[in-house]
Amino acid sequence: MKDMAELIDGKQIAKTLRAKVKEQATYLSEQGVTPGLAVILVGDDPASQIYVRNKERAAEKAGVQAQTIRYDATITEAELLQKVATLNADPAIDAILVQSPLPEHINEQHLQEAITPEKDVDGFHPENVGKLFANRHEYFPIANTPRGVMTMLQHEQVDLYGKTAVVIGRSILVGKPMFSLLEAADASVSLLHRHTPDDVRHTMLQQADVIVVAAGVPKLITANDVKPGAVVIDVGINRMEDGHLEGDVDFEAVEPIASKITPVPGGVGPMTIATLLETTVELAARHHDVELEAGWQNI
Amino acid sequence: MKDMAELIDGKQIAKTLRAKVKEQATYLSEQGVTPGLAVILVGDDPASQIYVRNKERAAEKAGVQAQTIRYDATITEAELLQKVATLNADPAIDAILVQSPLPEHINEQHLQEAITPEKDVDGFHPENVGKLFANRHEYFPIANTPRGVMTMLQHEQVDLYGKTAVVIGRSILVGKPMFSLLEAADASVSLLHRHTPDDVRHTMLQQADVIVVAAGVPKLITANDVKPGAVVIDVGINRMEDGHLEGDVDFEAVEPIASKITPVPGGVGPMTIATLLETTVELAARHHDVELEAGWQNI
Repeated sequence: MKDMAELIDGKQIAKTLRAKVKEQATYLSEQGVTPGLAVILVGDDPASQIYVRNKERAAEKAGVQAQTIRYDATITEAELLQKVATLNADPAIDAILVQSPLPEHINEQHLQEAITPEKDVDGFHPENVGKLFANRHEYFPIANTPRGVMTMLQHEQVDLYGKTAVVIGRSILVGKPMFSLLEAADASVSLLHRHTPDDVRHTMLQQADVIVVAAGVPKLITANDVKPGAVVIDVGINRMEDGHLEGDVDFEAVEPIASKITPVPGGVGPMTIATLLETTVELAARHHDVELEAGWQNI
Repeated sequence: MKDMAELIDGKQIAKTLRAKVKEQATYLSEQGVTPGLAVILVGDDPASQIYVRNKERAAEKAGVQAQTIRYDATITEAELLQKVATLNADPAIDAILVQSPLPEHINEQHLQEAITPEKDVDGFHPENVGKLFANRHEYFPIANTPRGVMTMLQHEQVDLYGKTAVVIGRSILVGKPMFSLLEAADASVSLLHRHTPDDVRHTMLQQADVIVVAAGVPKLITANDVKPGAVVIDVGINRMEDGHLEGDVDFEAVEPIASKITPVPGGVGPMTIATLLETTVELAARHHDVELEAGWQNI
């Protein structure tokens, strides 16, 4: 018996993935293809500004051409939809994303549906959500954070077949696609959320081989929630009053019990952008009918 | 304490629903709208012949104009897709379904995607699957069997909020949309399947307030699987060697333990066609911009 869980080093895995993306972007450029990512940013939310800048930088380093289209918060939904239509038709653009949150007067669902499924790098279009949930045997873009979690689990050689998994949080960004991915890997998955009674959550967590938490509640998961040897993935990033970041898992308490665990920060966080670039390169290859190098995603 | 579960009488609930559908179809016809359902039947599978005939009869009685388009099993996929395109464009058709199973050389997914989401009465198009899973607040057609189960639960005033539910079986016909519907009703739902180990299934079932089984395994659920007072919905219809029908639940063993239970036959079975007609009428009303009478679906 060891006393501490193995840390899942998202920073390192994301770095490896970004390097692999860069190799493929280079390979694509040799075929005359430059992967193009368009990011639509509305308003001046400070966190969004940082996210978008990080995406731009990571894209540039990986050989993906990113352009951010900035709008004032007063833009109308019709104008935004018009811009999306233009990007849908633009052959230089392979991937489109709209940075959340949007101003109140813009319906996020309308935007999600307006992006053509073929350029829907976030995997939020209902058609892509449905294909994932239905476990279709074909290519479609998948929400990047949960896909990044799957890459981590694969890197850590976590076998999901026949395992029991619990996902906490049911957003379309994380919880629901995470559910779909674990289910498609033949785990038996429970999806819990804010309306799950505490005792039910506790009981189900204690039975889980794999736990993925995306609840946005600091230290929601404590030591006695976790079965010895469980794999614990913490998607929560909560900024505390004193400025430090806290996950949804009480890391210090859970680490001695889990077999593998992600830290916050440095766990799931870095995977999102790396996976976004991975998806962008895949979409570019598909649009230009280029086959990427076999096995390039094995990390 | 009572000794036996209350029977959920699907036959009676379906009858009530069909009567309500007929009222709305009559109301629509007063506005000059005849709900039109097109059923594509390929090959001569005897069970399919019976299902389709039952659908035709039920439609006729409810004031829905059903037409079955029959093809030899040798029809090509391209010909079928062509027919679907014609039906998509036909203003007299509000609802299209393709009867399963299809011959091996026809890709069922291609058919599911070819039907325009607006006429996808089975709710199998990935866009409709995705909207359901994402719990979008808008109208979209939903797979009829699980939707029928929800009507039964509503009729029986089963409160799902905060409850624990287990769904066994993960088909796109039943298990997955059932999961989505229970989850959207704020239950905490676990989706189990053939790769779930027996002991895990047993443990999770014992914790469940609501159980929906669509496994196709006769008498899979036995007395000690079920928590006293649970609601048990049996979607299984297994034809046994001696010809009689058996559900996925050991009815005689479970009935004394459950609070409510569906029999087989006469439980979920009759709900599917009634719900198909319900959806057809909804689609017809939408296509013709007619508002159906308020509260007509309260049964």
